[in-house]
Amino acid sequence: MEEKKLAFASDYMKGAHPKVLERLVETNAEETPGYGSDRYTEAAKEKIRRAVGAKDAAVYFLVGGTQTNAAVIDAFLLSYQGVVAADTGHISVHEAGAIEANGHKVLTVPHKNGKLTAETLRAALAAYFDDENRDHMVMPGLVYISQPTELGTLYSKEELTGIRGVCGRYGIPLFLDGARLAYALACPENDLTLPDLSRLCDAFYIGGTKCGALFGEAVVVPDPGRLPHFFTLIKQHGALLAKGRLLGVQFDTLFTDGLYETIGVPAIRAAEAVRNTLRLLGYPLYIDSPTNQIFPVIADDKLVRLRDKAEVSFWEKYDEDSTVIRIATDWGTTKEETEALLAILKEL
Amino acid sequence: MEEKKLAFASDYMKGAHPKVLERLVETNAEETPGYGSDRYTEAAKEKIRRAVGAKDAAVYFLVGGTQTNAAVIDAFLLSYQGVVAADTGHISVHEAGAIEANGHKVLTVPHKNGKLTAETLRAALAAYFDDENRDHMVMPGLVYISQPTELGTLYSKEELTGIRGVCGRYGIPLFLDGARLAYALACPENDLTLPDLSRLCDAFYIGGTKCGALFGEAVVVPDPGRLPHFFTLIKQHGALLAKGRLLGVQFDTLFTDGLYETIGVPAIRAAEAVRNTLRLLGYPLYIDSPTNQIFPVIADDKLVRLRDKAEVSFWEKYDEDSTVIRIATDWGTTKEETEALLAILKEL
Amino acid sequence: MEEKKLAFASDYMKGAHPKVLERLVETNAEETPGYGSDRYTEAAKEKIRRAVGAKDAAVYFLVGGTQTNAAVIDAFLLSYQGVVAADTGHISVHEAGAIEANGHKVLTVPHKNGKLTAETLRAALAAYFDDENRDHMVMPGLVYISQPTELGTLYSKEELTGIRGVCGRYGIPLFLDGARLAYALACPENDLTLPDLSRLCDAFYIGGTKCGALFGEAVVVPDPGRLPHFFTLIKQHGALLAKGRLLGVQFDTLFTDGLYETIGVPAIRAAEAVRNTLRLLGYPLYIDSPTNQIFPVIADDKLVRLRDKAEVSFWEKYDEDSTVIRIATDWGTTKEETEALLAILKEL
Amino acid sequence: MEEKKLAFASDYMKGAHPKVLERLVETNAEETPGYGSDRYTEAAKEKIRRAVGAKDAAVYFLVGGTQTNAAVIDAFLLSYQGVVAADTGHISVHEAGAIEANGHKVLTVPHKNGKLTAETLRAALAAYFDDENRDHMVMPGLVYISQPTELGTLYSKEELTGIRGVCGRYGIPLFLDGARLAYALACPENDLTLPDLSRLCDAFYIGGTKCGALFGEAVVVPDPGRLPHFFTLIKQHGALLAKGRLLGVQFDTLFTDGLYETIGVPAIRAAEAVRNTLRLLGYPLYIDSPTNQIFPVIADDKLVRLRDKAEVSFWEKYDEDSTVIRIATDWGTTKEETEALLAILKEL
Repeated sequence: MEEKKLAFASDYMKGAHPKVLERLVETNAEETPGYGSDRYTEAAKEKIRRAVGAKDAAVYFLVGGTQTNAAVIDAFLLSYQGVVAADTGHISVHEAGAIEANGHKVLTVPHKNGKLTAETLRAALAAYFDDENRDHMVMPGLVYISQPTELGTLYSKEELTGIRGVCGRYGIPLFLDGARLAYALACPENDLTLPDLSRLCDAFYIGGTKCGALFGEAVVVPDPGRLPHFFTLIKQHGALLAKGRLLGVQFDTLFTDGLYETIGVPAIRAAEAVRNTLRLLGYPLYIDSPTNQIFPVIADDKLVRLRDKAEVSFWEKYDEDSTVIRIATDWGTTKEETEALLAILKEL
Repeated sequence: MEEKKLAFASDYMKGAHPKVLERLVETNAEETPGYGSDRYTEAAKEKIRRAVGAKDAAVYFLVGGTQTNAAVIDAFLLSYQGVVAADTGHISVHEAGAIEANGHKVLTVPHKNGKLTAETLRAALAAYFDDENRDHMVMPGLVYISQPTELGTLYSKEELTGIRGVCGRYGIPLFLDGARLAYALACPENDLTLPDLSRLCDAFYIGGTKCGALFGEAVVVPDPGRLPHFFTLIKQHGALLAKGRLLGVQFDTLFTDGLYETIGVPAIRAAEAVRNTLRLLGYPLYIDSPTNQIFPVIADDKLVRLRDKAEVSFWEKYDEDSTVIRIATDWGTTKEETEALLAILKEL
Repeated sequence: MEEKKLAFASDYMKGAHPKVLERLVETNAEETPGYGSDRYTEAAKEKIRRAVGAKDAAVYFLVGGTQTNAAVIDAFLLSYQGVVAADTGHISVHEAGAIEANGHKVLTVPHKNGKLTAETLRAALAAYFDDENRDHMVMPGLVYISQPTELGTLYSKEELTGIRGVCGRYGIPLFLDGARLAYALACPENDLTLPDLSRLCDAFYIGGTKCGALFGEAVVVPDPGRLPHFFTLIKQHGALLAKGRLLGVQFDTLFTDGLYETIGVPAIRAAEAVRNTLRLLGYPLYIDSPTNQIFPVIADDKLVRLRDKAEVSFWEKYDEDSTVIRIATDWGTTKEETEALLAILKEL
Repeated sequence: MEEKKLAFASDYMKGAHPKVLERLVETNAEETPGYGSDRYTEAAKEKIRRAVGAKDAAVYFLVGGTQTNAAVIDAFLLSYQGVVAADTGHISVHEAGAIEANGHKVLTVPHKNGKLTAETLRAALAAYFDDENRDHMVMPGLVYISQPTELGTLYSKEELTGIRGVCGRYGIPLFLDGARLAYALACPENDLTLPDLSRLCDAFYIGGTKCGALFGEAVVVPDPGRLPHFFTLIKQHGALLAKGRLLGVQFDTLFTDGLYETIGVPAIRAAEAVRNTLRLLGYPLYIDSPTNQIFPVIADDKLVRLRDKAEVSFWEKYDEDSTVIRIATDWGTTKEETEALLAILKEL
């Protein structure tokens, strides 16, 4: 059976963290009003407001990342505006054109280690505003970044502050996709806290799907009036969960006793071990990422043998004979699984 | 606490049927590939194919009804086409413009007891095709109906066959929204089986959210080549669940041992009791519906007292002093709850 | 040849008014910058500002009516909003879904003589704002009306003031489609001047295509900051004419020496004669319209004979044996043409 | 007055070619049915069919380039598909997001001299089809190129045949934007005839706006069944001209006695003279283009002086102190104007 292999293909292969599941079971028989107007959702919002240090923030719960990105970006942009993103951004590549399906162009700029830099952003915005023909072009109306990035790298507080500064100078809001935010928070290299994000971003989302929930993403809008009627827009996007309390219960649990801030620790430890072993074995790393995703380059014949024993992800062809793969650890990765993977890698 | 009141506002106030929940718990720690490429999803598809009597059918799982309607309708329609629906259709009124957000007009025709009739459909299509200026108008490209309807009524086999005939004559496909399909299947008045739907519809969906699942809808396309690349379209709509196996596990359970076909029985029995009591008490029924939704007209002062003790839904204002409300039962409605509601009604 | 028949099918069958054509010829060899940044366009804007009594108004020129409606409505609406219109509105029926193609629902209300009334508008808006489930519905974000209407009728100053009042009460802007505005201005029954429109509407357009220009519509936005970056939106809609001065030259001519205000007089006189004859001959009029469109009901066999000699438009089937047709006069309709038509009608 | 300067900013600064204007004047008083159902339009279509050597081709007339690109691309693509274009393509940069506004991504690939090459196209398509995650990405559904390109360069017959081959291999149609096609046809370096385009493209358009018409573009679809109901889509895009015969008259004239094929000759001769002088004067050319657009790099202080005497276009900043400008000649550029420009350039 395919499911018996070691599972390092992604960070959404398991169900929910035991505490999250337990609370879903406990509350299953309760009857609550729909669409997030229940007490669990309210409690989860309140706990998130405290955790992010923004007591008035509007908090919304959606089911998955692509729909969250699409809804938030659609809410920020006017018809004639597009969203600036690194060319490696998830919205640029792997969301099947969801942003364009809502009528908006993704204005890509070249990434640096999977990141947008203040400098390339400034250059891109200047190029637009200095262009005498800009009225014939898509106006940048939002900046999108991910933390960690799609390549597992992290923005430092200095870098994010720099980007914020450029956004501020041009009057363009900043949106941060935190699909894997727990793995940033658990990473020793990280110096950006949840309150930092509240302070530096116009909106960001706290990922649940890849970070211990069955599913779910929590959008935080520090200025609560910033996205009027966003509830209706969520509904229009087909992103409003009927039994909204399922999201409330899960995030309430994730934000009880600081669970979310530490849930990524096992993933970070496992990734560190895998990275060290890959380096020792001489595998080039496509990118140097400190979080739960590792991108080794591997010869195609070895990849076939590896995939016999472990699920890993195709990332892109590196050259004729080798491939960049992604190995992902998660909140539930055990020491045993990690060691089994290391053993396989050593014997390839 | 609001949650302590009797809960008859909707059929999505509880969690999942115990068997569904149990299976989610059992499988929680397993690791499976994402996006529905797991064995539970495959098993669920196979069981559904058998239940609907269409062994080659394509089956897709999505999270909620609005997103399912939007994705399926978008998949069927070309840019210049719209979807014909009763003016009471869910897509016409209560989906926040999701169909239009994808660029398609909802071509409404007057309902009859919440239903489209073959005759009004034929008239609407003839009006379009007979119009010398039709090239300046939106071409009907799909017909949308719900079973049960938004008003709780049912299409008979004869009625659906009639609609199918009109569709066939004009070469327009037929899509059936089965958000509450279990309540049709459990209803003594119903004579339309799942295999009938496979035979008469180009696509239909089997509702999970309101029928025993935590969430989830299963789209059945009897001719598997009818919607090419629908997977990508689901992704583009933000409707692809990362942990797709959650849908697989739930529908696998619902389609084991005929659970889905009988899960609605308690709802139907409870609704019958409520309906009878309302009639005895002299409440006019806005519509005569045989399934799990009941629409009494109630004086506004009585409604205030009723809402003190039971959650019911606002439907629409009837006149200055009275309101149409919706009372909904579900798969988990107990005899005790029903009797408590009857007692309240009698004392209003 | 079909073109030899009397031409009463529409008011866009001829080229331009001689004065307009003459100016196009005179200026043909000149070289001007593109996209409306030329002196003719600037002069036309200034003359229109004076004519409408709004010295700061923003004025934009587009090519045709459907694109003008689509661009203006898209500019006013946010993603979750729709536009309220009479069910006979041009945008509701005869623009091939252009509004929906931009993602917005047309929220139709029943017309009265082709018009929206303050009362039906108030009822529609109240129904939305009183609905407890309105967050699941499309929010009304703009009101659209036509002057004259698609059925040739006219809003009086009192009626428009009433609609304005309802709009103001709900904070919803008002947009008036003046595709045939010259025929309102030339009509004795009309009491709404261009300055009235500036005062009562948030935007309106002055039709050129049907009123003496080769093509072209002038959008007036009395508050110039109301539609920011509308130029870019026009470009995005494919509605920006490269040789923008063609629009400037035409509207400059139409707004020189009050030409536009009187250009419709021949049409109104001809229509009056046709209407009187139809009444004398006993043809029922589908609607009583005082402007340049007349809608008699005619037996199908007579229609065949009529169409042998004159081009008229199909409007809709009236019953099995008869049809509503449209007879349209225009700025260039001559006394001879009118008398020829009257003679034909008398001999049918 | 700005209009007194030499006009080399673009090829749409004048009105129409005298023969085109003359025919518009001659036919002005005629009455024809609207929307292109007149005899002039029919005659123009027939002449174009003969000129392109495709006797069954469907021909459609639209007003401008951006709307033509948007409508054609929307007609070819399904919801989940995007259009492949060079990153310099007009649709990628200067159409204000019109393609995305219709829901489709522009999939850009790096240009080579403003052109897509068979090799980069093959690589881009292979990258998509070889990607294991392609179902999460936008499927390429059309290839877009321009002849001449936005940078004035030309595809050779060999190059276009190569691109056609790649398209054929992947089953993806090819669309060619001929906004300036007359300048390719008039260019000695060009070896691609109109019949070649019919043979190699699934659709292409013959530009009128920049090539002697007041406005207008003629879309040719060699296989007439390829874009069903395209008329309705044109209407939906707001791109259907009410007085369609204006387009018919213009293209009928342009395709009488081979006018279109030679109309660009004066522009090509003038451009050659300007290019030679720029080279002699030591101005670097940003790109080596053989048609009517020339892209010199010029120091910013010289540019200020040049713009005092001649209108030229900003293209992009080259470095801190210099700018790429565009000098465009057109069908009406005279020897005198050219010599005046050369004199100015020599004295800068």
